[in-house]
Amino acid sequence: MKFSSRIEACSLSPIRKFRPYVVAAETKGRKVLHLNIGQPDVETPAVFFDAVSTFREKVLEYAPSAGVESFVEAVREYYERLGISLTDDDILATYGGSEALQIIFSCILEEGDEVLVPEPYYPNYDTFVKVTGAVIKPVPTDPEKGYRFAAREQIEPCITERTRAILMTNPGNPTGVVLSREEMRTMAEIAMEHDLFLISDEVYRELVYDGQRMSSMLEFEDAAEHVVVVDSVSKRFSATGSRVGAIVSRNQELMGHAMKICQGRLCAATLDQMGAAAMYRSLSESYYAGIRAEYRRRRDTVVEGLRKIPGVQFRIPEGAFYLMVTLPVDDAEKLQYFLLEEFEDHGQTVMYAPGEGFYATPGKGRNEIRIAYVTNPEELRRAVELLGLGIAAYNAKRGAV
Amino acid sequence: MKFSSRIEACSLSPIRKFRPYVVAAETKGRKVLHLNIGQPDVETPAVFFDAVSTFREKVLEYAPSAGVESFVEAVREYYERLGISLTDDDILATYGGSEALQIIFSCILEEGDEVLVPEPYYPNYDTFVKVTGAVIKPVPTDPEKGYRFAAREQIEPCITERTRAILMTNPGNPTGVVLSREEMRTMAEIAMEHDLFLISDEVYRELVYDGQRMSSMLEFEDAAEHVVVVDSVSKRFSATGSRVGAIVSRNQELMGHAMKICQGRLCAATLDQMGAAAMYRSLSESYYAGIRAEYRRRRDTVVEGLRKIPGVQFRIPEGAFYLMVTLPVDDAEKLQYFLLEEFEDHGQTVMYAPGEGFYATPGKGRNEIRIAYVTNPEELRRAVELLGLGIAAYNAKRGAV
Repeated sequence: MKFSSRIEACSLSPIRKFRPYVVAAETKGRKVLHLNIGQPDVETPAVFFDAVSTFREKVLEYAPSAGVESFVEAVREYYERLGISLTDDDILATYGGSEALQIIFSCILEEGDEVLVPEPYYPNYDTFVKVTGAVIKPVPTDPEKGYRFAAREQIEPCITERTRAILMTNPGNPTGVVLSREEMRTMAEIAMEHDLFLISDEVYRELVYDGQRMSSMLEFEDAAEHVVVVDSVSKRFSATGSRVGAIVSRNQELMGHAMKICQGRLCAATLDQMGAAAMYRSLSESYYAGIRAEYRRRRDTVVEGLRKIPGVQFRIPEGAFYLMVTLPVDDAEKLQYFLLEEFEDHGQTVMYAPGEGFYATPGKGRNEIRIAYVTNPEELRRAVELLGLGIAAYNAKRGAV
Repeated sequence: MKFSSRIEACSLSPIRKFRPYVVAAETKGRKVLHLNIGQPDVETPAVFFDAVSTFREKVLEYAPSAGVESFVEAVREYYERLGISLTDDDILATYGGSEALQIIFSCILEEGDEVLVPEPYYPNYDTFVKVTGAVIKPVPTDPEKGYRFAAREQIEPCITERTRAILMTNPGNPTGVVLSREEMRTMAEIAMEHDLFLISDEVYRELVYDGQRMSSMLEFEDAAEHVVVVDSVSKRFSATGSRVGAIVSRNQELMGHAMKICQGRLCAATLDQMGAAAMYRSLSESYYAGIRAEYRRRRDTVVEGLRKIPGVQFRIPEGAFYLMVTLPVDDAEKLQYFLLEEFEDHGQTVMYAPGEGFYATPGKGRNEIRIAYVTNPEELRRAVELLGLGIAAYNAKRGAV
């Protein structure tokens, strides 16, 4: 049977290959602490479950293709509170941020087109772009300069006549970089001057630390035709299993095309949208301040632990709940196998996401890792400690060979 | 801004253009009865809502990318009861039948490829195929022969070297055709001989009348590499808003590729899958017999009404909850505008889906309509009566001009 060359070019999750080794370690009675997953242990607000369980219709009907009205309205009001004026036509409900990206790419990409993405980047972007026949062209960044990318001299050399869009995650996954107002302005200007879509994945919007304000590319109204925001309730409300997101853009031609796909797949799940609407309506700035404080505490725990490990390099992440760390080892994947197969301390070991999976450029990221700080501070403290012990044991063994 | 030529080739729902006319009719105080929609008024089983509202975890986490385990297991057991043996690896949970189709097409289609679909067909297939850059090649059928398609002399002349798959809906939307065992065998043999995927959309599986048995292309184990079944709880359990479906195939290479996309979009909604699992587990043949009897009653009501309208032609539908009817008018779209703008009987009028939207071949279906029999028999009886009165009034007016 013949398959599409596009799907042949896609990959399964790079982290999957470690799964048998995790199982083997656990079978030996070892506890594996996880710094590799994006599933927070923060509780989903009760208001979500209340809304879902008090649904009183006899038939669970299709939602409108553009979204349940109360959800679209709640999203509009949420942006209004951020000082961003939208109409309901600027919002389409999707199955999470993932479907938002799939729909946007289906509207703008075809065979041979290019999307610029600063690397390291969220690996699933690759799948979404490749199934259209287009490719991601990575915008190089420098770990030593904190992975910043929003500068003309970094972006513009990568633009070709096949470039259709720039895709960025702000706050950044996996880097934790948060763009300054000036950097956002630069990105808007590049998009306008080169007539590109600027797809801004802002699903971590609330998670900014150190007094930064929550922001959105939608603030730049002169770039309205270019800016497309990807949004989701997954991280904002710790409801990753609800799969409710949105495309937000004032480009009505884009939204008209996106609506064709939304109608084609009929609608996003009705009950989940109702639960999401209830969260947007009921939870205010005090809720966001609470989760922000919680993740900040977790970030600080990880940072404090990393500072005790000789030779690691990193910048303090400004947002989201990830950071990239350069390790004093030859190869972070080899270290991961060592940690799962040979290492243990008091019956425990640790897992992270090796850095190479976040790069499109071959060989890059080999001694980098991504840490997700989504579990409780006590577990995080121990996990980072195990990382330090593991690195020492690994390098001692290599030196001894 | 430049958009994909593929999305430019897609259309918004053809029924949308009537929306302003419906609003205008309703503003004049008229009641519009609907024969055009696929949203049944049959109650969603309470067990769905019970499962969803008794969810007791504190965090609504991502489901596994392949599906919530209890859902996959429940689907496997459901097929087991149909006499079809599957492993969990043969099942991937999706956002309804729609995403199942999107994923399958992303795995097998690229620019210029062709999918054979007997016409008339479900119009959203067009969107799913066109966004990949492929095209639907319609297999012609004859209204006077009841729209049957599963014969070598109809299918084989349409196969070219770019044909990758045959897509069929069985039981049929919009035709109500249910394939006989011999016809299913023919389709399996054609797929095997020409090395094509046979994508069988079986979301109406339970809705077969007149003593036919529920069946599936999965019964033909010798065609296992070719058969891909699209399934969904939407119609089976009258839960269209839950968006839970599945890809079911024993072709492990296909499932491996599909898993790349499933991992890319992370998972389908967790709670909805739990509700769906509960329905599969709790509801037995007596439930299916009940809904089958209910839809059969509705079908018979529509058939009885249509028989009273002079000049209409149709075959009694064998399955699903639709039928195509050839009307004694020049143009079913013009009649629809007339019904909404000029016609009324005791303040009521009627709406259906004009036939042209179900054909890829230009000009075909102009005097045909699709009727969905998803509302209660009383309303259906009156709606069909209005159709007859409307046809008479329309033709009288045209004769008088």
